[in-house]
Amino acid sequence: MIKITFPDNSVKEYAEGTTAMQIAESISPRLAQDVLAAGVNGEIWDLNRPISQDASVKLFKWEDEEGKHAFWHSSAHLMAEALQELYPGIKFGIGPAIENGFYYDVDPGEAVIKEGDFPAIEAKMQELVARKEEIKRQDISKADALKMFGDRGEEYKTELISELEDGRITTYTQGAFTDLCRGPHLPNTSYLKAVKILSVAGAYWRGDEKRKQLVRLYGITFPKKKMLDEYLALMEEAKKRDHRKIGKELELFTFSTAVGAGLPLWLPRGTQLRLKLEDFLKRIQKKYGYQQVMTPHIGGKQLYVTSGHYAKYGKDSFQPIHTPQEGEEFLLKPMNCPHHCEIYKSFPRSYKDLPLRFAEFGTVYRYEQSGELHGLTRVRGFTQDDAHLFCRPDQLKDEFLKVMDIIFIIFKALDFENFEAQISLRDKVNREKYIGSEENWEKAETAIIEACQEKGLKAKIEYGEAAFYGPKLDFMVKDAIGRRWQLGTIQVDYNLPERFELEYTGEDNKKHRPVMIHRAPFGSMERFVAVLIEHTGGKFPLWLTPDQVCIMPISEKFNEYAWSIARQLEEQDIRVLVDDRNEKIGRKIRDNELKRIPYMLIVGEKEAENNEVSVRKQGEGDKGSMKITTFAALLNGEVEDMMNRWQKK
Amino acid sequence: MIKITFPDNSVKEYAEGTTAMQIAESISPRLAQDVLAAGVNGEIWDLNRPISQDASVKLFKWEDEEGKHAFWHSSAHLMAEALQELYPGIKFGIGPAIENGFYYDVDPGEAVIKEGDFPAIEAKMQELVARKEEIKRQDISKADALKMFGDRGEEYKTELISELEDGRITTYTQGAFTDLCRGPHLPNTSYLKAVKILSVAGAYWRGDEKRKQLVRLYGITFPKKKMLDEYLALMEEAKKRDHRKIGKELELFTFSTAVGAGLPLWLPRGTQLRLKLEDFLKRIQKKYGYQQVMTPHIGGKQLYVTSGHYAKYGKDSFQPIHTPQEGEEFLLKPMNCPHHCEIYKSFPRSYKDLPLRFAEFGTVYRYEQSGELHGLTRVRGFTQDDAHLFCRPDQLKDEFLKVMDIIFIIFKALDFENFEAQISLRDKVNREKYIGSEENWEKAETAIIEACQEKGLKAKIEYGEAAFYGPKLDFMVKDAIGRRWQLGTIQVDYNLPERFELEYTGEDNKKHRPVMIHRAPFGSMERFVAVLIEHTGGKFPLWLTPDQVCIMPISEKFNEYAWSIARQLEEQDIRVLVDDRNEKIGRKIRDNELKRIPYMLIVGEKEAENNEVSVRKQGEGDKGSMKITTFAALLNGEVEDMMNRWQKK
Repeated sequence: MIKITFPDNSVKEYAEGTTAMQIAESISPRLAQDVLAAGVNGEIWDLNRPISQDASVKLFKWEDEEGKHAFWHSSAHLMAEALQELYPGIKFGIGPAIENGFYYDVDPGEAVIKEGDFPAIEAKMQELVARKEEIKRQDISKADALKMFGDRGEEYKTELISELEDGRITTYTQGAFTDLCRGPHLPNTSYLKAVKILSVAGAYWRGDEKRKQLVRLYGITFPKKKMLDEYLALMEEAKKRDHRKIGKELELFTFSTAVGAGLPLWLPRGTQLRLKLEDFLKRIQKKYGYQQVMTPHIGGKQLYVTSGHYAKYGKDSFQPIHTPQEGEEFLLKPMNCPHHCEIYKSFPRSYKDLPLRFAEFGTVYRYEQSGELHGLTRVRGFTQDDAHLFCRPDQLKDEFLKVMDIIFIIFKALDFENFEAQISLRDKVNREKYIGSEENWEKAETAIIEACQEKGLKAKIEYGEAAFYGPKLDFMVKDAIGRRWQLGTIQVDYNLPERFELEYTGEDNKKHRPVMIHRAPFGSMERFVAVLIEHTGGKFPLWLTPDQVCIMPISEKFNEYAWSIARQLEEQDIRVLVDDRNEKIGRKIRDNELKRIPYMLIVGEKEAENNEVSVRKQGEGDKGSMKITTFAALLNGEVEDMMNRWQKK
Repeated sequence: MIKITFPDNSVKEYAEGTTAMQIAESISPRLAQDVLAAGVNGEIWDLNRPISQDASVKLFKWEDEEGKHAFWHSSAHLMAEALQELYPGIKFGIGPAIENGFYYDVDPGEAVIKEGDFPAIEAKMQELVARKEEIKRQDISKADALKMFGDRGEEYKTELISELEDGRITTYTQGAFTDLCRGPHLPNTSYLKAVKILSVAGAYWRGDEKRKQLVRLYGITFPKKKMLDEYLALMEEAKKRDHRKIGKELELFTFSTAVGAGLPLWLPRGTQLRLKLEDFLKRIQKKYGYQQVMTPHIGGKQLYVTSGHYAKYGKDSFQPIHTPQEGEEFLLKPMNCPHHCEIYKSFPRSYKDLPLRFAEFGTVYRYEQSGELHGLTRVRGFTQDDAHLFCRPDQLKDEFLKVMDIIFIIFKALDFENFEAQISLRDKVNREKYIGSEENWEKAETAIIEACQEKGLKAKIEYGEAAFYGPKLDFMVKDAIGRRWQLGTIQVDYNLPERFELEYTGEDNKKHRPVMIHRAPFGSMERFVAVLIEHTGGKFPLWLTPDQVCIMPISEKFNEYAWSIARQLEEQDIRVLVDDRNEKIGRKIRDNELKRIPYMLIVGEKEAENNEVSVRKQGEGDKGSMKITTFAALLNGEVEDMMNRWQKK
């Protein structure tokens, strides 16, 4: 008999060679139906792999990353098996599970695989699913593996095998298809109820542009047809809301190959939007005692040697900038904290000066491979709404509460109604890897937990997820179509104060180390604006939207009147467009609805005579005619309400 | 006889071998007294050097850079001669004229030259001036020069001579002192009426830190004692206003060696001040139809190859940033224009879209040798209040007028009453070096001249001072102590639109090139703040100053009342400090006067009882007691007036 320990620390005895599936069955038939993979002593295993020794076991379902991973990994094999039947002689590269689904890189030889072929591949996959083929794991020697794949002309596989260590090679087989694979996999193909091929693209073998370009097929599968339908509907909606598409339509930002990939150029409308957000946060931060600072975008290499960033990231970052003389070396700053530490150090500080809260909309640069870049969410240069709070240990909780206030204000102002939080604490056992005293950690962890309780915030506690230099609190928002985005972090840091030897003179006249808090409610302006675009579908709140009003004369005769109104509204700080094109009014309304402009003012004979405007509100339609001053007061009142909502609580 | 052509194109005949001094004498005795050097066919000559051929001649006086240069160059020789008498065996490096005065690098061997020795050196110099020693020029062969200076052990001079071309070497001699020198020099030492040694510093021979450190003595001289006294008084005043000193006292900015020399860190108060300036300009620019954009601080190398900046400055700039993979090269941006050109290119543009005015507070980086850096006026990273206007040629004058408006508004708002302007146009003769059509140049030059006339601006026209890509208008302001600072530039550019192939579709449906205007009213935020500090001595206008009010309780008993007032004023957007130190009120007043805080509010028993404050205004003293709301209204009214002054005209 062997002892199996479960996540809740309960222990049960099973016969030697029991599989995780058998364990699941022993607990409940329902669980046996749902389980997809197992964690055995921290490794992910197939459900039907025999366990021969005492072990800790965790059972993973669809809800778990590990469960989904096995599901999609098996799906990649399923697709490969289908392709092998449909395209004899096809050769295989690699086929991993990814965040949403899976792909397989294949070399179909002379054959061409295009979107029109997807239904046939899907049909073949469904046929294989119906066959309920068992998926079998097998250990294989390196020599045998080389021979097996070599005989089949699988040149990509043999290249991979040749780099593997003998004695640790496994294959997985289902039906007539055998793949070189570490696993784990589902017990059989019948789990993969709903299949969909999503797209096809080219991909260089091993990401090397000097090697052959293979065909990469992306797919996704679900345990239920309904889930696939929901996913496809969500994708359809997400496509409409894609911030890259809307960013272009609304002229918010652009990229230029000459400037460089991942380096956004903010167009006038996007800049307007971003500055409104920045001003909003500045206003809140001022109330909360923050002080704005400004620091350069480069720093001496030594600064990052001191901070530890150079040792950790130097090799994978933008490389040092040399000077033409004097042999100096600078780095593009990957974060603002070292600069803020230098500001802290520029004066002697007393306990009475703390907390100090230095805020900066600081643009930082971090190298990402160009293939990893994506619109505004994955860039090489971005502006953090950064601040560093330097406080005494006894001030930590209060500061945490105040930062949470700011984050809630922002979420509320921008209609992110749903959000979750995660508290990342130290590992319960291995504590030697953390910097900072036991006492301070205890204080900080308790402070965060209590702060969340006081705010009535439901936060998931994750042990072992803290950075080595301090615990943190992360926020995830759910957008209008249910997707989750990580926004907003509050991070305690004991490391940088140590490395930069930051000090303050205590009431006891002795030197003490301050605690540092990093925080960014938006995260980065780029990412936040991207999320906001996708959340709102480009229909920004009135106070934020680049163009608040579009005036549309019904004919050229009233252009002059339209422009005179525009000037009056501009005097009232209202952002106005005039659509004086020689087009029918219906066309103008349609075009400007696409531009998501909240208010449309239609002006013709009657309006010009009465010095009025005819008002249409986005999503609400006709609001009747009114005097221009009335309209301006209405709009500005609405903005004022939105802007001040957070102060009223 | 030879023909001498004067700057006004008049021609006179003189005997062959006539000197410039003789020519001056032939014109007027007064001129002969004032003239210091001569331009002969574009070269600068001694006054007593015989002219043996037809030549164009220009006579330089103290008011001319060339005249001052000769004056101070002879002064360097005078100081060297004095040092030679006072410190036998002293060896000489180089001794040039500089912007204000001159220096000489010397190696006094075992001797030490310190500030206490300056009076003796000055006395010796005065003695030599009184001797009225003639300064004689002599051609010398390289061999003779090497022997002459070698015999005297002048190792630095012989090193210099060894690098010179034979046949082009000259010496200048006065009394017992002979120097290797190209000249030109004054006729004799008697011109140098007022002498002053200013400072002593170390300087490596040839700027190379591996070579010997010499002693560098700085001095200045004037033709009249009164001018020297005025200069020294000005220097004294300038020292008090030194922005580096005040910047530290008022906690505006700092530097850190870890971040790097010439890379300012803006402290909270400095940031507050700078952002107020930026917001002020943004407000004006909005009225004038500018659109804010934001661009990254790096750009692909190709961007600067296209713009031409790489070919011109690449070698002397911060070197390219390499990526760890993909072999990309980026440059820190030395200017914002290429990025703005890319924004222009991001959409097709029509003649109806123009002018487009893209504004950005864009931080740029330019390498300067660390020895050249100076506070905020000479830095390696600075933020331009940049904008690029893209317009049709027919819009140029109107745009110029509007930019001038903005510059005048700023000068007025910041009390720069005195300013001058310079129009830089093409060379009258050599026009082949300029890019852009004759027609466009003609249009642009006329536009600038007319714009200045319309604005009643007295502007000096300088031919040949235009950049090869367009004419420009520069502004110089005079600060409170009479020093001139170059601030504000408007530059026409035909080059970048060409290089970036910028286009718009004209009314004729054909493609046209827009004209570009670069402009920066402040120049850079760093330099402008430095000038503003030196202009105001740190007493910033109320609307701009970081701390507007300091509340001073007369004893700790009233601290709470002081803080309650502070909160009330902060609600009214007033920037407040509370000096709640346990100090006497007299001390508090003195300390806060040093901080240049415009309003001091003193609160004690009476004030607390009546809910009042006792008001002291900087420079005006006691203003009596008043209700807090009255004070807030008074202060905000004053700010409002200042901020809106420009809109009223």
